[in-house]
Amino acid sequence: MSKSTLAISVPGFLANGVAVGIKGANQKDLGLIYSTIPARSAAVFTKNAFKAAPVLIDMERIKRGIAQAVITNSGCANAATGKDGYTDAMAVSAAAARQLKIPEEHLLVCSTGVIGKRLPVKKIESGIGKLVKGLHEFGIEDAEEAMMTTDKYPKVAIRKGIVGAKDITICGIAKGAGMIEPNMATLLVYVMTDALIDSKALNTVFHQVIDATFNSISVDGCMSTNDTAIILANGLAGNNPLERAQARLQRFREILTDVLMELCQAVVQDGEGATKFITVLVDGAKSRSDAKRAAYAIANSNLVKTAFFGEDPNWGRILAALGSASIPIEKEKVVLEIGNLTVFAQDAPADIQISKLKDIYKSNRIDVHVCLGGGDKSYCLYTSDLSHDYVKINAEYST
Amino acid sequence: MSKSTLAISVPGFLANGVAVGIKGANQKDLGLIYSTIPARSAAVFTKNAFKAAPVLIDMERIKRGIAQAVITNSGCANAATGKDGYTDAMAVSAAAARQLKIPEEHLLVCSTGVIGKRLPVKKIESGIGKLVKGLHEFGIEDAEEAMMTTDKYPKVAIRKGIVGAKDITICGIAKGAGMIEPNMATLLVYVMTDALIDSKALNTVFHQVIDATFNSISVDGCMSTNDTAIILANGLAGNNPLERAQARLQRFREILTDVLMELCQAVVQDGEGATKFITVLVDGAKSRSDAKRAAYAIANSNLVKTAFFGEDPNWGRILAALGSASIPIEKEKVVLEIGNLTVFAQDAPADIQISKLKDIYKSNRIDVHVCLGGGDKSYCLYTSDLSHDYVKINAEYST
Repeated sequence: MSKSTLAISVPGFLANGVAVGIKGANQKDLGLIYSTIPARSAAVFTKNAFKAAPVLIDMERIKRGIAQAVITNSGCANAATGKDGYTDAMAVSAAAARQLKIPEEHLLVCSTGVIGKRLPVKKIESGIGKLVKGLHEFGIEDAEEAMMTTDKYPKVAIRKGIVGAKDITICGIAKGAGMIEPNMATLLVYVMTDALIDSKALNTVFHQVIDATFNSISVDGCMSTNDTAIILANGLAGNNPLERAQARLQRFREILTDVLMELCQAVVQDGEGATKFITVLVDGAKSRSDAKRAAYAIANSNLVKTAFFGEDPNWGRILAALGSASIPIEKEKVVLEIGNLTVFAQDAPADIQISKLKDIYKSNRIDVHVCLGGGDKSYCLYTSDLSHDYVKINAEYST
Repeated sequence: MSKSTLAISVPGFLANGVAVGIKGANQKDLGLIYSTIPARSAAVFTKNAFKAAPVLIDMERIKRGIAQAVITNSGCANAATGKDGYTDAMAVSAAAARQLKIPEEHLLVCSTGVIGKRLPVKKIESGIGKLVKGLHEFGIEDAEEAMMTTDKYPKVAIRKGIVGAKDITICGIAKGAGMIEPNMATLLVYVMTDALIDSKALNTVFHQVIDATFNSISVDGCMSTNDTAIILANGLAGNNPLERAQARLQRFREILTDVLMELCQAVVQDGEGATKFITVLVDGAKSRSDAKRAAYAIANSNLVKTAFFGEDPNWGRILAALGSASIPIEKEKVVLEIGNLTVFAQDAPADIQISKLKDIYKSNRIDVHVCLGGGDKSYCLYTSDLSHDYVKINAEYST
């Protein structure tokens, strides 16, 4: 598995991003990724009851397990827009499929941005010709740029590896920043690969890996209406086909996990206003669901998050958050570590030098480890702090 | 029931607040309320697994249904302090009971402030003499001042009314500001009344009224280790005793509700950094628990709260939060009103003038009304916005 200086392209995939005037002057806001041949495809969507129109369309289309392109606009979520919103998304879909000369049901549509506003269909339609004409091998970064909203930087991860006796490439792009919470992390994630893989195996692996990566991060505990993760696998690597229950599928899973873990950590680091990357590991739990509840209670506590932002070693807030998680807790067995320092054990504060704890809080990366001491199940998640800039960004978003 | 210009005192109750050096120079940090005779008493406590030492003590003592005094320090929560913390709280209890010449089990002890620090017992003990000597009829406001932490102003509410053929007085004091969330709202609340009431009736009514008031507010979704609400009823009004299932108990409940509603609204208005008072009413629900989940999903959404702070009429965030509440939702039936404006109905945005909605967002008091259209159950709660000052206050709290 190699990283770093790889050119950002995947055999058989073209991409592009253009500005059509949804966001602002000359800001890219319409992106396209396209496989030169139909690809196996799987997707994971938000569980929000107010799913955006494009999500409803894609949920239907993905059932076939085949897709060839994904078109995305930023600047407007096309959510809470009812039947009109659905019609708008279908109009974009029809126009793009026509230009791409592919069946409409092989096209997936995504939107991100403000909720409750109509999609500027004419602007989008007027840009599709240029978007399609400009598709090129190294256009993935342009497509990524076109789907950014409050993201500070683009998020692209790529890996190559040998699977089924052939070199394969997996490349993922993501947009995130706000409304980041599992089910899923609020965002768009697209993965392109030239691996040859059976549809069912692809679906299973993709769901598993999303669960272990993007469903294990939280920036603000808010679930979006538009979360969508899509994988397209066009098979052009010509490897021995990957099927379920094969050892070589495990290798594919590892590379995919690596790509998505890099992306989801980038999303947390670029969380709106984030200044810290915080890992919350809860272990010693009786069940994984207990560990998960505890981890989220800590990660989503505004008091914990503001203390990290302020570099204020007020670790009692972590315990207070843990204590509110509605899980069985034997206080005497709980151990709380921050960085390499045990701050609480045997139902009492540990004897620590507060200056050492302050130093840990000053770091950009902070590890919180809670051992519940009651079992062998664990859960790990990644989160950020809560800063002035989070408030600033989100108080001034739509206007 | 009369309000406003009443002198803040309750027959048979004395109170005081002094500075003993826990918080800072000359800041009151030790408070006492005292009934000249033993009073019927009931209390509601935090459900946090890491209950502070004084909470554990009071939970035992309140079982008798009798108490005569409550001593409170601010500046240190005495939580997450284990056996030492318990010993510390017992030492304060012993010293105060000795000075007051009451049985120790008739004294309740409370602490509020930073978690995980040992209680400065010597400082407290050294101040108890002065505290007790200074007890006076109009000392309730001093006691209130002594328990404030990040509160910007004291919270006192008083009502008189005729119950059981006699004038009775109910006076409540509260401290709040941060860690405000039900089970309970994070805070200390003490209610003093001269009404004569049966212990069981008092316990039932107090739990009911706390549920309808302090358990229906949320500032930051964080549950504290120290939440305690206590009522003392010394019976000096000489009314016909109030017992369960009596009509006149209903009158008492109304007056108590009025006092606690005023206090809990004051706590929300003084929520850390709060600039808006927001009422979230969810009705048309199949069950009260569905309505409650929906209301909390909206009230605790950082994205909703920052939009209110920024006066940014980004109402789509309210729908996104509602959609994440994990309750059954029929989108076509949902109606969202903000102030007197319907912004979403029949699964589509309503045709509104955005300037009118902006004006509503500029108000200090904003009503959010969600009708789910699927039943007749409802839930109403009160919350605040999320501002720069919330982050500032909580990033710099303990250090």
